[in-house]
Amino acid sequence: MNTFQLYNPTKLVFGSGTVRQLGMLLKPYGKKILLVYGGGSIQKSGLYDEVLGHLHKNGATVHELAGIESNPRLTSVQAGIELCRREGIEFILAVGGGSVIDAAKAIAVGVPYEGDVWDFFVGKAQISEALPLGTILTLAATGSEMNGSSVVSHWEAKLKRAFSSIHAYPRFSILDPKLTFSVPRNQTVNGIVDIMSHVFEQYFSQTPDTPLQERYAESILQTVVENGELALADGENYEARANLLLCGTMALNGTMNPGMQSDWASHAIEHEISAIYDIAHGAGLSIVFPNWMRYVYTSRPDRFAQYAVRVWGIDPTGRSEEELALAGIDATRDYFRRIGAPSTLSEAGIGEEQLDRMAEEAVRYGPIGSFRKLEASDVREILRMCL
Amino acid sequence: MNTFQLYNPTKLVFGSGTVRQLGMLLKPYGKKILLVYGGGSIQKSGLYDEVLGHLHKNGATVHELAGIESNPRLTSVQAGIELCRREGIEFILAVGGGSVIDAAKAIAVGVPYEGDVWDFFVGKAQISEALPLGTILTLAATGSEMNGSSVVSHWEAKLKRAFSSIHAYPRFSILDPKLTFSVPRNQTVNGIVDIMSHVFEQYFSQTPDTPLQERYAESILQTVVENGELALADGENYEARANLLLCGTMALNGTMNPGMQSDWASHAIEHEISAIYDIAHGAGLSIVFPNWMRYVYTSRPDRFAQYAVRVWGIDPTGRSEEELALAGIDATRDYFRRIGAPSTLSEAGIGEEQLDRMAEEAVRYGPIGSFRKLEASDVREILRMCL
Repeated sequence: MNTFQLYNPTKLVFGSGTVRQLGMLLKPYGKKILLVYGGGSIQKSGLYDEVLGHLHKNGATVHELAGIESNPRLTSVQAGIELCRREGIEFILAVGGGSVIDAAKAIAVGVPYEGDVWDFFVGKAQISEALPLGTILTLAATGSEMNGSSVVSHWEAKLKRAFSSIHAYPRFSILDPKLTFSVPRNQTVNGIVDIMSHVFEQYFSQTPDTPLQERYAESILQTVVENGELALADGENYEARANLLLCGTMALNGTMNPGMQSDWASHAIEHEISAIYDIAHGAGLSIVFPNWMRYVYTSRPDRFAQYAVRVWGIDPTGRSEEELALAGIDATRDYFRRIGAPSTLSEAGIGEEQLDRMAEEAVRYGPIGSFRKLEASDVREILRMCL
Repeated sequence: MNTFQLYNPTKLVFGSGTVRQLGMLLKPYGKKILLVYGGGSIQKSGLYDEVLGHLHKNGATVHELAGIESNPRLTSVQAGIELCRREGIEFILAVGGGSVIDAAKAIAVGVPYEGDVWDFFVGKAQISEALPLGTILTLAATGSEMNGSSVVSHWEAKLKRAFSSIHAYPRFSILDPKLTFSVPRNQTVNGIVDIMSHVFEQYFSQTPDTPLQERYAESILQTVVENGELALADGENYEARANLLLCGTMALNGTMNPGMQSDWASHAIEHEISAIYDIAHGAGLSIVFPNWMRYVYTSRPDRFAQYAVRVWGIDPTGRSEEELALAGIDATRDYFRRIGAPSTLSEAGIGEEQLDRMAEEAVRYGPIGSFRKLEASDVREILRMCL
């Protein structure tokens, strides 16, 4: 186990009817609020009206930034920063999924910064302060509701980049599983893949002696696998939705894998795909991950064998470590297929035209990954396996 | 799963050599520091000198409160409060195990309160503020380093009571596994039992549909069982000590069982034993828990059967739920015996003289426990089974 710091100042408020606590949660902050959201789904569901009701009852002045894209764009973030400055916004409330929250975080850190907020994404500047923000989550997926990370796309430059800062943690996040009842099937599938991928990035690690962290990761994976299928069978299964929601948060709030080096190569590769093709993050991950696994498993077949046995219940009797490892990878791909996630780039209408560019761009700042370091040639090969 | 709030503002700094970060961690706070510790073990190990060195380099004025008891006493807490007021202390630094940290928390909440700090322990007053405190942990056990709870004994009245408050969370806790190398065998054993007991209190729950929380609990139990024996075999096994330390924190920082009702009846019973007899908390728990289990398992044999299979690896083939449940309880008792923890009150030199008094006192504020509600007669029976 490595040396680590675990510090997560987000207050998580979880359960049915918890949106009612919004007024109380906002009390310590100012009254000038920017409401950030995506498409019209929160209006259709009635959540928009409920939130505005609480805000007005609380005496808030509300400005709105709607239409955040599913791969949130720098231009939207910049518009939000402008709006905050012009209106003297004191608190940002993000209502939606990870994209909306990521955009809100980027706005929050951008407002007090004199330069271009993109500087934070490309390592040109350090974040030292932010407007306070809170979230109401409507989708089990990214974990952004309880961490300091944000991923934003620079659409013109075809770049998708991330930052992480202690200043960008939401002050509070409200998670009501019922708000995820209306999430359409394909987005539920993408969320399931996204959560599992976050676990994979941390679980396939070279850090030795991390028995608790490994079991925590396996616990989340098993729970997502079971409850993912239950939620897909019945979108209004409260417990299934609640379990997915909790798993999404716990997978990426720092408590699952303290002291373990993460990988994140598959995310870097997926970011290059969705930067160019604008496919859903979860769809990209379901294509990339099984192929990444197949490319790297020989670096630690023992971990992959353990994954097969503990997560997928594959009987180890009479099977070699390598056979188990491969069976676990196959089980992953089979599960993704079974829930309807894509497994090839061609299914997503993507050919080999941009493979070289994506491979080069993925390693722009040096090799990616820590489980196995990947150069451009490795990334190209993994992308080729994805075709 | 129940509705819940998860909020833990403690910054955990974990790993070898992390005491060196003390000066930096203290920066946001005042320079007048009360150092709270127990016996001479931190002087013997050199930790005392190291801590004082960092404090002085940081320009701090240090006052000391030494000699905190292993069941920390109200009189020590009151002396600490007096000292803080007299010297205008701005920050409390607890260096030691759970007892020292619990005393420091009680001092922290007592300083700004006009009445007697005992009021907080008996529910006569609500905590609304506290001096900031930080900790350097030297024992894997209580989890007090990352929560807001404190247990203190009113020795004259033979009472042991607890409070929990968001204001009592340490601002930071430093956990260096090497600081636990010198923990003697019996204290290591008590720590192992203490951690497992914290998990039991939360895992044996009537709350339905908590698959992730159950798996997390099982993860901690399995990891403690394995690493407990490794640490006992070689006290300087860094990884074993690190895994125990992490398990102790994760078992009681709120992340293991959000949305699950806890029980805590066994702790209440143990508190009555150690309030009168001053035995180590872990020793009391190793006596009480297997008997509590045997008394209540019929309330939910399925959970006990799951415990047997998943934690102890007991083969379910051909065994009934009840047989599995009982096998799991036996495995618990066997493990406690194997590591040298007591299993009967008589081993601790305790007879039946005070059983009635302990039973009455345990339910002074009403029935205890939620897995099964226990009246005085139930507690008396469990204590009788402990003889």
